[in-house]
Amino acid sequence: MTERTLTRKGQATRERIVAAATELIARQGVAGTSTEQVRDAAGVSGSQLYHYFDSKQALIRAVITRQADAVGDADGLPRLGALDSFDALQAWADAAIERQAENGGRGECSLGTLAAELSVSDEDSRAELSTGFLRWKDLLHDGLHRMQERGELRADADLDQLAYALLAALQGGTLMSQTLRSTDPFRASMAAALAYVRSFEVG
Amino acid sequence: MTERTLTRKGQATRERIVAAATELIARQGVAGTSTEQVRDAAGVSGSQLYHYFDSKQALIRAVITRQADAVGDADGLPRLGALDSFDALQAWADAAIERQAENGGRGECSLGTLAAELSVSDEDSRAELSTGFLRWKDLLHDGLHRMQERGELRADADLDQLAYALLAALQGGTLMSQTLRSTDPFRASMAAALAYVRSFEVG
Repeated sequence: MTERTLTRKGQATRERIVAAATELIARQGVAGTSTEQVRDAAGVSGSQLYHYFDSKQALIRAVITRQADAVGDADGLPRLGALDSFDALQAWADAAIERQAENGGRGECSLGTLAAELSVSDEDSRAELSTGFLRWKDLLHDGLHRMQERGELRADADLDQLAYALLAALQGGTLMSQTLRSTDPFRASMAAALAYVRSFEVG
Repeated sequence: MTERTLTRKGQATRERIVAAATELIARQGVAGTSTEQVRDAAGVSGSQLYHYFDSKQALIRAVITRQADAVGDADGLPRLGALDSFDALQAWADAAIERQAENGGRGECSLGTLAAELSVSDEDSRAELSTGFLRWKDLLHDGLHRMQERGELRADADLDQLAYALLAALQGGTLMSQTLRSTDPFRASMAAALAYVRSFEVG
């Protein structure tokens, strides 16, 4: 059942289910989260849940889409698509580090956590996660492209490469900081990635 | 039951169990792997398995320790502790990228995958993973320190920061390449991290 064909009330129920699933999965992982727990947390019946998602797989895919859409928007970070200056990139990194410090080193980038748990074992989810990462990469690419057009970034800078380096630093730094309960790895990885982008600065 | 108190035969059996568990978990994740599957794959009885590992948790911790010890040794990559020149670091990155290309973009750094699956939900495993990451960081730090002593790296380079940046690039790049089934993110993240280290080169 896609979002388009739902009434407004139906959409609200669907959103409540996906939000509950997202929160449970962030805390317990995909494998540790049952549809019964989602049903209870969302306050819906089993048949209601089934009406919107006919399998746990379908629900997981909706969670992935939600997390891919949410980045830097609902979550209080600068939007990825708006990062079109060195200052904006630095502010984005600082905000992400700040938030992780507030969370005691725990990360919240559940797209990365989902990818680690699912990208090997679940081909449908892997494809969905891949789409999400590529969307993020394209958003970063767009901002870098505007910097290139304004003559701030060198013409020979490989924008896909820079965008991938930023995203991988975000993912890897989050993962390590979450494991070490320290923001040091995240600070280090973002500093390295930003320095790499800056190495293509004009002038 | 620790390794120390085991006979040689007992050690071999224990190692067979941990090897089987490692391989299953790499393919299916922790939650997707049952002790029954490990028992069957290792060709041991339930009571034998229990003799060495009295819980799935204990078995997982042994897998984590094994993966933390194995890096760049049994797995054909240059050893992390031997990376004490820019050429050695570059060769290490190239070998890791090459191996991922052979695997069709799939990563094998299961310490990272384990971290993503376990570091939020399982405190004992998180602590064990943290120890593993710190050991890797220290190995990289040692090589960088030798470069600093020989006057190849600037004295003001923060070696912990450089080591963390390299490891986070490895983890994040592996995760994204595994998800996208493309080595591009991994190549980009390693290029950025190595360029960052090189920016502290003397002369």
